[in-house]
Amino acid sequence: MLLLHRAVGLGLRQACRLKSTTSRICIQVCSTNDSFQPQCPSLYFSRDKSSTRGWRVVGALLGLGAVLTYRGHRCRAAQESPRIYTREEVKSHSSPETRIWVTLGSEVFDVTEFVGLHPGGPSKLMLAAGGPLEPFWALYGIHNQSHVREILAQYKIGELSPEEKASSTLKTSDPYADDPIRHPALKVNSQCPFNAEPPPELLTENYITPNPIFFTRNHLPVPNLDPDTYRLHIVGPPGGQSLSLSLDDLYQFPKHEITVTLQCAGNRRSEMSQLKEVKGLEWSTGAISTARWAGARLCDVLAQAGHQLCENEAHVCFEGLDSDPMGTAYGASIPLTRAMDPEAEVLLAYEMNGQPLPRDHGFPVRVVVPGVVGARHVKWLGKVSVEPEESYSHWQRRDYKGFSPSVDWDTVDFDSAPSIQELPVQSAITEPKDGEMIESREVTVKGYAWSGGGRAVIRVDVSLDGGLTWQVAQLDGKEQRPGKAWAWRLWQLQAPVPAGEKELNIVCKAVDDSYNVQPDTVAPIWNLRGVLSNAWHRVHVWVAP
Amino acid sequence: MLLLHRAVGLGLRQACRLKSTTSRICIQVCSTNDSFQPQCPSLYFSRDKSSTRGWRVVGALLGLGAVLTYRGHRCRAAQESPRIYTREEVKSHSSPETRIWVTLGSEVFDVTEFVGLHPGGPSKLMLAAGGPLEPFWALYGIHNQSHVREILAQYKIGELSPEEKASSTLKTSDPYADDPIRHPALKVNSQCPFNAEPPPELLTENYITPNPIFFTRNHLPVPNLDPDTYRLHIVGPPGGQSLSLSLDDLYQFPKHEITVTLQCAGNRRSEMSQLKEVKGLEWSTGAISTARWAGARLCDVLAQAGHQLCENEAHVCFEGLDSDPMGTAYGASIPLTRAMDPEAEVLLAYEMNGQPLPRDHGFPVRVVVPGVVGARHVKWLGKVSVEPEESYSHWQRRDYKGFSPSVDWDTVDFDSAPSIQELPVQSAITEPKDGEMIESREVTVKGYAWSGGGRAVIRVDVSLDGGLTWQVAQLDGKEQRPGKAWAWRLWQLQAPVPAGEKELNIVCKAVDDSYNVQPDTVAPIWNLRGVLSNAWHRVHVWVAP
Repeated sequence: MLLLHRAVGLGLRQACRLKSTTSRICIQVCSTNDSFQPQCPSLYFSRDKSSTRGWRVVGALLGLGAVLTYRGHRCRAAQESPRIYTREEVKSHSSPETRIWVTLGSEVFDVTEFVGLHPGGPSKLMLAAGGPLEPFWALYGIHNQSHVREILAQYKIGELSPEEKASSTLKTSDPYADDPIRHPALKVNSQCPFNAEPPPELLTENYITPNPIFFTRNHLPVPNLDPDTYRLHIVGPPGGQSLSLSLDDLYQFPKHEITVTLQCAGNRRSEMSQLKEVKGLEWSTGAISTARWAGARLCDVLAQAGHQLCENEAHVCFEGLDSDPMGTAYGASIPLTRAMDPEAEVLLAYEMNGQPLPRDHGFPVRVVVPGVVGARHVKWLGKVSVEPEESYSHWQRRDYKGFSPSVDWDTVDFDSAPSIQELPVQSAITEPKDGEMIESREVTVKGYAWSGGGRAVIRVDVSLDGGLTWQVAQLDGKEQRPGKAWAWRLWQLQAPVPAGEKELNIVCKAVDDSYNVQPDTVAPIWNLRGVLSNAWHRVHVWVAP
Repeated sequence: MLLLHRAVGLGLRQACRLKSTTSRICIQVCSTNDSFQPQCPSLYFSRDKSSTRGWRVVGALLGLGAVLTYRGHRCRAAQESPRIYTREEVKSHSSPETRIWVTLGSEVFDVTEFVGLHPGGPSKLMLAAGGPLEPFWALYGIHNQSHVREILAQYKIGELSPEEKASSTLKTSDPYADDPIRHPALKVNSQCPFNAEPPPELLTENYITPNPIFFTRNHLPVPNLDPDTYRLHIVGPPGGQSLSLSLDDLYQFPKHEITVTLQCAGNRRSEMSQLKEVKGLEWSTGAISTARWAGARLCDVLAQAGHQLCENEAHVCFEGLDSDPMGTAYGASIPLTRAMDPEAEVLLAYEMNGQPLPRDHGFPVRVVVPGVVGARHVKWLGKVSVEPEESYSHWQRRDYKGFSPSVDWDTVDFDSAPSIQELPVQSAITEPKDGEMIESREVTVKGYAWSGGGRAVIRVDVSLDGGLTWQVAQLDGKEQRPGKAWAWRLWQLQAPVPAGEKELNIVCKAVDDSYNVQPDTVAPIWNLRGVLSNAWHRVHVWVAP
C-alpha cells in the first residue's frame, strides 16, 4: 500500500510537471495547426473490436499526444460557466471519440486529457468513463486526498441536473428487481441472473480481490434474507437429531479463516466459443477471484449433528435459498470424505475479507470448498444433508461436467462423466491486454495461476514467440502449506522486447506440484458446455515503432 | 483367464484348420514355382529400422503367405535326422531373414511358419526368437498343455549340443556380477545398473504385470540380502526408542494389500530425447507396471516407533541397502503427512503379486507410495527416519525434478524446483506399434492410462487423424475408490479405418478426475533430465492396401 502511495505520488508529480510543460506548448499548438492530430490515440487503436480498448495504448505515450491535441478544447470548456448535464448525457461520453466524462458527487468532469496521465494507468480510469468515480475511489482509497481532488477540479465542466438521482424504482413483478446494486467496473455477462467478472487490469491488482469486484456467478435471483430470522437446517443422521442454526449459533463454532481462490468452471469459456459454439456465459479470464473467508468448519457442524465418516460412499448435499419461479432451489454436493476432513477446511462462511458476506456472494452464509469448482460453493445456504448419492440438482447432474470434443448435444450422456470437483491447473495473462500496443524496449507480463485440490503452482512459463521459447516468470505472494495451496499465485515477467519485432504472441502456462501442465491448445479440450477451458493463454500485442 | 483360454483354443483350432489346408496347397506350390514369394512378410517390412519389427504385420496375413512359402523347406527339414546346435547358433536365428528358431528344454524348433499363426499374435512369439520359450511359457501357463506341445513338435529341427549349459560363471570383481537373472522379454536400457522395460505388447496383456516382466529401475547393483539376518532400522523420535525389525517383526503388523501402478519419472523419455538431447535412460512407454503389493502400513510402523504428525513440515527419509563403491546408499523421502495418513496407504511391502519381492524389486522389503513417482519407492529398504528436511540424497535433491524447457545444464538450479512426488496424468498406446501395417477395415487401439495422487482416469480420447477428431475409448478394469485410484486403467478402441486412408496418425490422451489433461506436444514440456514426458502419445501406422 505504501508502494502504491509512492507510485501515485510520483505519478501525480509527473502529471503536474507534464501539465505545466504542455500548457506552454499548448499555446503554440493551438495557435498554429492541428499537426499533432496524428498522435491522437485513436490512431493507435488496435484491431480489437471494442472501441474502448483503444485507450489501453495511451499509457505508453503518457498521454502527451492527447494532452497536446485536446488542451485547447479543455481550456475553452473551463472558461465557460458551469453547465448542467443529465446522467444520460454523461454516459454518452465514454470513449476517446466522444470524450471521457466522469462524475464525483454532483460535479461533472471531462478527463479526456488526464486519462493518459492517470498514475494507475489509463485503462483503469477508463473503467469509470461515462459514470461516477465513487465506486472506484471506494476500491482504491488513495484517491480520497485533497491533492487528488485539486487535480480533478481542473477538469470540471459542469454539474449534474439537480433532479438527477440514482433511478432505483423497483418493478415488483421482476424477480430480479431486488438484486443488489453492483460495482460498475464489473464486466456483465448476464444481467438476470447477474453474472459478471472484474476486468483483467483490476483482477491482479491485488492478491485479495476486493469484495465489490469479486466475480459474481448467480444462477437465480438474489434472495433478500433477514439475518435475524435466518436459519441453517442441518439434517441429522438416521435416528439422530437435526439442527436449526441461527447465525448466532453458527458463530459459536470455532471461527476458521482461510484465503481461498474461487473459479467458475466456465472461466475463459469465450476462448472455446470462438472456436465453436458452446452453451454458456461468455466469461473472459475474470471468472476467478480470491478472498479471505471466515466461518465455521463444515466438519465441526456435521459432527455436532452426529455425522461421521462411513465406509460407504456418501455425499454432503447443499441447498441454496435462491430459487426459480417453480420453487426449485440451487443445489450441489461434495463427497463426505472431503466435508469431514479437517485438513480440507470446508467452511460455512459468514465473512468475506473481514466483512459480512455481500448479498451477491451468499449473505448470510455460503459454502467455501477450497480447491474445488465454484459451483459447489453454494450461496445463501439453507440446508445441508448427507446422502448416499450426489445431489440430484440440475447443476450437479446435468451441468458442470466435462466431455470429449466429439460429444455434442445429440450424443451427450451426462451420467457418463463425473461432476467437476477439483479443477485442473490454470493460468492467464492480465497484462498486457490482447491487441494492446506495448513499448519497444521492455514488456511486463502479469497474470494469475492456480490449481485445484490444494496443489501449489510451482512455475509459470511465459513465451513471447507463441510458445517456441520460454522464460520463467517470477511468482509473487507467499508459499502456502503443502497440499493446501487454496489460493492463486500472481506472477510477472519483465523481459526485453526482441529487437525488430513488430508484434508479439505472448503465451503463459503454469505447472502445479503434481507437475500437471496446461494443454497447448483449446480445440482438443473443447466441450459442449465450454467448461474447463485451461489451454495456454495467449495475447497478441503490437510493438510501438 | 477363461476368455484367454477360449481365445487360445480357438486360435489353435484355426491354426490346425489352416495347417491342413495349407498342407494341401503346399504340394501345389512346391511343385510349381515360387510365385507366392512376393507375399513373404519380409516384403511388408515397415520403414522402421528394427528388422524384427517387420514381423508385426504377419499377424494380419495370418501367416498364410509365410506358410505357403516356407512349407517346402520345413517339410524337408523335418525329414532329415535331428541336428545338433549351439545356443549361439540358435540366437542367430531371430528374424524372418535368418528364420525364427526357439528352444524348449534341449530341443530346437524352427517356428518361422508358425509365427503368423500364433494365437497370441506374432509379435509375442517374436519376443522369444533366438532363445528359450520357457520364460514366456512361465508367464502364460496356457502353453503347458499337451496339444500345444504337439503343435510345437511339428517344427522341431534338432537338439541343443549336450555341452550347452547356461553360462553362469561370475566375475567376482564385477559389482553387478551377483545381479539376478532377468526375463529375456525385457527391453534392456542399461545392463549395469540394470534398467529394463516390458515390450508394449506384453505390458497391457494383463491388468496385473507379471513379476518377471515388471519394469526394473535400479540405480546401483542389486544387493543380495539374507532374509534371516535382514533388519529394518526405524529411527525413533527424539527421546524415543528406535526399532530394529526383522522380517518376522514386520509380519506382525496388520498385513495391508493394495494394487498400485509404479511409474518411473523417465517413462517415455525417448520421445523427449528425439527432440533434443537429454540426460537419462532411453525409456520407451514401458517404464510403468502394476502389481498387487502387500506389507505393513508405514503409518503403523512409524506409530509403533512413537512418531506422530507434527505442526512443522517433516519428511520421512528412506535409505536402501544398495550402495555405490563409495558406500553411498540410494535414498529418497516423502512428506510425513503422506506417510502418516492411513488413507494414503504407504506400504513397507514384502510381497509382490503374492510372492516374496523378487530381488530386482527390493527383496526383502521396499517402500510402495501409491500415486507417487517410482523414485520414492525405495527398494532393499534399510533405514527409515523422520527429518525436518527432505532426504539429502542425490536422487531427492539433484535429480527427479522438473524444469522449464529454457533451463539447461549451465543454468539449472536444482533447489528452485520441488522434488517430483505425485505424477501428472499419463497415457500411451501399446497396440498397434509405431510403423506397423494394420488391416484396412478396422483398427484396434489399446493402451494404458494413469494419474498420480490417487486421481482416477475418467476418460481416454483416441484420434486416428493426428488429433483433429476424437473418439472415446472403452476403459477396462474396475473403478477404484475415489481419491485412491492407485492403479492404471487399461483401455481400447475398436474403430473402422476411414476409407481410402493409406496411413493413420493415432493419438491418445487421458483425463483424470481433476480434469487435468495431457499436453498436446513434447517440446513445451521438454526438460534437461527428460522426466515427466506425458504429452499425447502418437503412433504412425500404415494401412494394408
